[in-house]
Amino acid sequence: MSSTAGLARFSVNQQTVKQLPLPELADACGKLGISHVGLWREPVQEYGPEAAARLMRDAGLSVTSLCRGGFFTALDPVERSRALHDNRAAIDEAATLGTSTLVLVSGGLPEGSRDLAGARERIADALAELGPYAGERGVQLAIEPLHPMFASDRCVVSTLGQALDLAERFPAEQVGVVVDTYHVWWDDRAPAQIERAAAGGRLASFQLADWITPLPEGVLLGRGQLGDGAVDLRGFRELVDAAGYEGPIEVEIFNPGLWARDGVEVLAETAERYLRHVVAEKR
Amino acid sequence: MSSTAGLARFSVNQQTVKQLPLPELADACGKLGISHVGLWREPVQEYGPEAAARLMRDAGLSVTSLCRGGFFTALDPVERSRALHDNRAAIDEAATLGTSTLVLVSGGLPEGSRDLAGARERIADALAELGPYAGERGVQLAIEPLHPMFASDRCVVSTLGQALDLAERFPAEQVGVVVDTYHVWWDDRAPAQIERAAAGGRLASFQLADWITPLPEGVLLGRGQLGDGAVDLRGFRELVDAAGYEGPIEVEIFNPGLWARDGVEVLAETAERYLRHVVAEKR
Repeated sequence: MSSTAGLARFSVNQQTVKQLPLPELADACGKLGISHVGLWREPVQEYGPEAAARLMRDAGLSVTSLCRGGFFTALDPVERSRALHDNRAAIDEAATLGTSTLVLVSGGLPEGSRDLAGARERIADALAELGPYAGERGVQLAIEPLHPMFASDRCVVSTLGQALDLAERFPAEQVGVVVDTYHVWWDDRAPAQIERAAAGGRLASFQLADWITPLPEGVLLGRGQLGDGAVDLRGFRELVDAAGYEGPIEVEIFNPGLWARDGVEVLAETAERYLRHVVAEKR
Repeated sequence: MSSTAGLARFSVNQQTVKQLPLPELADACGKLGISHVGLWREPVQEYGPEAAARLMRDAGLSVTSLCRGGFFTALDPVERSRALHDNRAAIDEAATLGTSTLVLVSGGLPEGSRDLAGARERIADALAELGPYAGERGVQLAIEPLHPMFASDRCVVSTLGQALDLAERFPAEQVGVVVDTYHVWWDDRAPAQIERAAAGGRLASFQLADWITPLPEGVLLGRGQLGDGAVDLRGFRELVDAAGYEGPIEVEIFNPGLWARDGVEVLAETAERYLRHVVAEKR
């Protein structure tokens, strides 16, 4: 397999090389034979959603996801209504960018609360409100289960099973799930849940990052470059393939060590790691 | 309920107040009306297992658990045989102390390995070798599922469900599980698994710590004092009660902030937190 063919499904989430402004990211992708990117709202808003959409289109890039909506667990009605409003804006931005996937970080426990079940129900309430709005615009709300270490402060949806339990309460064209290896690699139930997600048309996005230790303080920025850690990345790729998923494979790494380096060099390295640890057959 | 009656099931794991040498710990427990302690191998070995057993007995204290055996996942045969040998010694020490519970931290992935399933099978192999030795000495090997954030470097058993899948391959008098709120609080399947554990005579130990953020670098020493965090501690106590568990409730907190303070004061505070956040009915 030539390296260009090998990159056919590769998508770089812009957080992986956030040191690259959008035009430089587009340019670097062109040079490296990369045809998909995952974008984040803040840099897109700064550049202007229409302008960003045009920039990507002109560079021959498809946008595989927009990060992120969510934060649905507030108890305060004002905060809650602000979140819904903001998520409608995120859906509009996703539609403008031409991506069908809005990634959701659903939200943690409100200050002082210990009610995980209640927080999960408020996520369902928000999905009920936003689902039709998203579906009409061709956008699927993609619940991302986050690693259980984020359950209190970021996302009370901790497993693919939970994410699917939530998603399946709504039409598949409105609500799906994200499979991110960093968050689910430890879970022996993940393979069965990947199958369930794909069978139901819910597998909105497949993302990769490796698991490395020791975790840094706050644990958010400790994701590893592909191949540096404990995750059987190839195995997960084979699982989603076997389940019938044919979409992009997006690499999303938050790592200050990568951000401190030349962005184009990091992007080239990431593509090479992808070919070696994700695409290539095991020797 | 008087505070002494309220402490009838309370056990302090010595790591919570590790600044207290064994005699001071025994003395403080006597003064505070605490009648159970969980011990760790290193301080017990330093003091001498027989002497420690006598000290506890003379102070009217029962030993509710010994931490820790385990680390069964090595691929290297020499390392593996050393681990089995060491675990037999741990079983002997538990028997000497008169506790029926040896807590296991089962082990992470060997350097460079990405094979979680293989590592879990090596744990089963070790349990098969050690189970009869433990059972004959009245000691139950207690698999502690550790939070998934420890899956690579400490314990590939990440959920109560996995722990029970392993334990149930052996007689209940040989292998059980630990329910530690810090490790399982996020898991919506935990309630059903607690029931399963208790019904099968597998619920060897019930431990408490609270979940606080931000997690510190390395994440090991970030456990919270009871009531300071996100865990519904009373809810978990009610779950184990409803499942028929009548054993001790052991508080095990690793927290440098608590270790820096006067140990007796921390012990008194912990007992008070236990009465307020675990025992007392919700107002």
